[in-house]
Amino acid sequence: MSKPAETAPESALGTPSEAHRGPLARLPRGFADRGPADIAATERMLAAIREVYDLYGFEAVETPFVEYTDALGKFLPDQDRPNEGVFSFQDDDDQWLSLRYDLTAPLARHVAENFDKLPKPYRSYRCGWVFRNEKPGPGRFRQFMQFDADTVGASSVAADAEICMMAADTLERVGIARGDYAVKVNNRKVLDGVMEAVGLDGEDDAGRRLIVLRAIDKLDKVGAEGVAALLGAGRMDPSGDFTKGAGLAAAQIERVLAFTAAGGSDVAATLANLRTVVAGSPRGEEGVSELAEIAALVAAAAYDDGRVVIDPSVVRGLEYYTGPVYEAELTFEVKDEDGRPVRFGSVAGGGRYDGLVSRFRGEPVPATGFSIGVSRLLAALKVLGKVGAEKTVGPVVVLVMDRERAADYQRLVKTLRDAGIRAEMYLGDGKMKPQMKYADRRGGVCVIIQGSDEQARGEVQIKDLVIGATLASAPDREAYLKAQAEAQFAVPEAEMVAAVRKVLARHG
Amino acid sequence: MSKPAETAPESALGTPSEAHRGPLARLPRGFADRGPADIAATERMLAAIREVYDLYGFEAVETPFVEYTDALGKFLPDQDRPNEGVFSFQDDDDQWLSLRYDLTAPLARHVAENFDKLPKPYRSYRCGWVFRNEKPGPGRFRQFMQFDADTVGASSVAADAEICMMAADTLERVGIARGDYAVKVNNRKVLDGVMEAVGLDGEDDAGRRLIVLRAIDKLDKVGAEGVAALLGAGRMDPSGDFTKGAGLAAAQIERVLAFTAAGGSDVAATLANLRTVVAGSPRGEEGVSELAEIAALVAAAAYDDGRVVIDPSVVRGLEYYTGPVYEAELTFEVKDEDGRPVRFGSVAGGGRYDGLVSRFRGEPVPATGFSIGVSRLLAALKVLGKVGAEKTVGPVVVLVMDRERAADYQRLVKTLRDAGIRAEMYLGDGKMKPQMKYADRRGGVCVIIQGSDEQARGEVQIKDLVIGATLASAPDREAYLKAQAEAQFAVPEAEMVAAVRKVLARHG
Repeated sequence: MSKPAETAPESALGTPSEAHRGPLARLPRGFADRGPADIAATERMLAAIREVYDLYGFEAVETPFVEYTDALGKFLPDQDRPNEGVFSFQDDDDQWLSLRYDLTAPLARHVAENFDKLPKPYRSYRCGWVFRNEKPGPGRFRQFMQFDADTVGASSVAADAEICMMAADTLERVGIARGDYAVKVNNRKVLDGVMEAVGLDGEDDAGRRLIVLRAIDKLDKVGAEGVAALLGAGRMDPSGDFTKGAGLAAAQIERVLAFTAAGGSDVAATLANLRTVVAGSPRGEEGVSELAEIAALVAAAAYDDGRVVIDPSVVRGLEYYTGPVYEAELTFEVKDEDGRPVRFGSVAGGGRYDGLVSRFRGEPVPATGFSIGVSRLLAALKVLGKVGAEKTVGPVVVLVMDRERAADYQRLVKTLRDAGIRAEMYLGDGKMKPQMKYADRRGGVCVIIQGSDEQARGEVQIKDLVIGATLASAPDREAYLKAQAEAQFAVPEAEMVAAVRKVLARHG
Repeated sequence: MSKPAETAPESALGTPSEAHRGPLARLPRGFADRGPADIAATERMLAAIREVYDLYGFEAVETPFVEYTDALGKFLPDQDRPNEGVFSFQDDDDQWLSLRYDLTAPLARHVAENFDKLPKPYRSYRCGWVFRNEKPGPGRFRQFMQFDADTVGASSVAADAEICMMAADTLERVGIARGDYAVKVNNRKVLDGVMEAVGLDGEDDAGRRLIVLRAIDKLDKVGAEGVAALLGAGRMDPSGDFTKGAGLAAAQIERVLAFTAAGGSDVAATLANLRTVVAGSPRGEEGVSELAEIAALVAAAAYDDGRVVIDPSVVRGLEYYTGPVYEAELTFEVKDEDGRPVRFGSVAGGGRYDGLVSRFRGEPVPATGFSIGVSRLLAALKVLGKVGAEKTVGPVVVLVMDRERAADYQRLVKTLRDAGIRAEMYLGDGKMKPQMKYADRRGGVCVIIQGSDEQARGEVQIKDLVIGATLASAPDREAYLKAQAEAQFAVPEAEMVAAVRKVLARHG
């Protein structure tokens, strides 16, 4: 894989004047600012998600951005060195602190710390930013938002089934049509069973198990042949990069591939295939039984129409999963960088992590949860045209014709605001032209003008910027005059609010 | 001042079992979790603030939590050592990164970086968490929320006046009554003029100026006599702690005190007093003129009824202010720790910071802004009884009478949710008692019961937990029987939704 693009060298950034010696104004690598449209679209989407979670009986709880490093644990995928991937710093008492890298580890700490106070099972949700100390790349940020829901204290897979169905409801609630997504369910125990069946269940095999896991996870990208190579000696990709394989023998590779290909024509067939693959492994069989139980619950609630499906190809990278794992995938196609159609892919995922709370308490505390990649889901809604089309109406701008009369203009603005109309007085320098340009740039629908003549008559001029912009293209003189009369007209001050309302109504 | 309480030693924290060797579940010092009531109350308050800012023509923009350390600058009050007060860590390219300590410095970076793309003047707002690497204490957190509004690119003090009036509108919009607050305005230039008048305007006097500033800021706490001591040789507080003074001579002290006492019976008197205090300092006189201009704008919009007032006692600790400074104070009284009545005090503040964007660009970029301490304002609303009284209704809990029938109970839950009723199936272990206890703990109004008898009849039992709890106190047998009939009754499954709605309506 080629390295992600580095940012330009400092000298190429910013536009300070020649003589300037101050710091450069630049975002840190991998971080981003957010503008009003993005913030508003995100807020609307989060509100919709919250509604569904509330309906399911989950309640909001939030943890801080900073945790003791040891409380977070080392559960990031693809991170072999300690604390790799995490932003950490030392407190003044020498204890290590870290920015949270997900919302699950902090929830585990919260539940363990407040165990006796919480109702159990404990259903909760939270939305927040998380941080990864990784090389940034295109679309790959070091700060991003997740929206999680978790049920702690329920060992029954009914809890997993519920979260999968809630995931489906959530996707539909935010605007993904039924048929454009699937919540795919698998079980780590089944995977463990496969590992057992191929003799990779020893303590010393942890490294090779991880390689196998990652190989399976690449099925979509490299196909069965590629996975076979990764399970065996290794694989050379088209760019010439070689990835070392797990070194499995042919019979072992076959068994793992049989697992990835276990998806049948219906649930019963898939479950039967899986039972064959894990035959002889009690843990694997337990996993298949759990999947069967989930399938039954999903069918009872009629979510077995493609909304929630059993799919052996789901792996999930995080090491802390212990049972059912699930992934919400958008199945509609988009064009990739080279213009080829590809599925939009995963926007959320989760699974059962029975060890995460337990490690604080030294007693079993089952838990399962689900995390939405907020930016990723929002990107999908943009592709579908569900967000981004909204127009925010700019403020009505009261122009400053005479700087001495700022107090008068302030009063006009106040009158508009008191009537609930978004309005402001122009606060910059310059005469008419920059003021009109400003109003335009803010997306304002009209401006208020009161020069000395208008003031003498107790009037204001209202200039409709939208109609004004179309004047030049009037088909004939009559149309022009009509538009001109609508584009700018005078009213007594007392009628300003009503007139502005009329102009605002014109343009929806 | 006594040291803030340290947290308990590790051994006293958490309740892991004896044999447990895992990490301890504990929040880092100075950080807090937030529960559902707090989150909901905060969200409501933030939405109200957002409404006012929108009305004033401001638009949302957000920056990330992490900035290059040099971009943030060192503007924290009471921090003499470099990077003191800030959480910092090094990136893999050796550049220093910091968690933002306020929302102003990042905004300055954002505006400087996107200068040509933004409309100017640029009105924007943002709400977010900020971080201070300070010793935590009671009510003093290392992560807290601010809600800022700023106008960049407007040199006119009309921008400052607007923000002060917006602050007043905001306080009223969230529930603070007129008369219970004041937005107090002062001007750094007037302070500079005082410094000039007492001969403390040299480059070498920066340290002493800071001591003078802090002395003035303590007027409320230590009185004029205390301030005089802090301006002179120093002051011994009742606990015996000695604070070294600024070492001013008697005449200088008198002049500074005259400044703090410049507040007159009306605006005109205050301004006249201030003119006397800064006489001979052009910068001081400019400051007084700016205050006069703000007062005129405030009067024109009729906010001079105590909502926005000129008050020479306002100082503001941050070093980056260059002109008008303002502080929103709640003037109603609350009891302090010792039961004595004190004013609630400051909940927001801000001022003009003309140098903060400029330092990136090497050209003047005027700016002014205002920051609400979100937790502090929320605490005030709690004191006033404006938040905290809301009751969130817990979910309807469908009890699990027979584990084999989970799919049936799941279906009942689905029916309730489809009708928009917050509902869930009990997911824990245990029979009737723990299930009822759980429903109670969640604040549920009723539970649904379907044992084999009910199932055979196609019915469900609905148990009203609120009436159920009052049964024991029924005055007579007749009342008891009536209440009992309402507290638990059977309906056909098809009528479950209607019956649950009736029970929910009973209890508002």
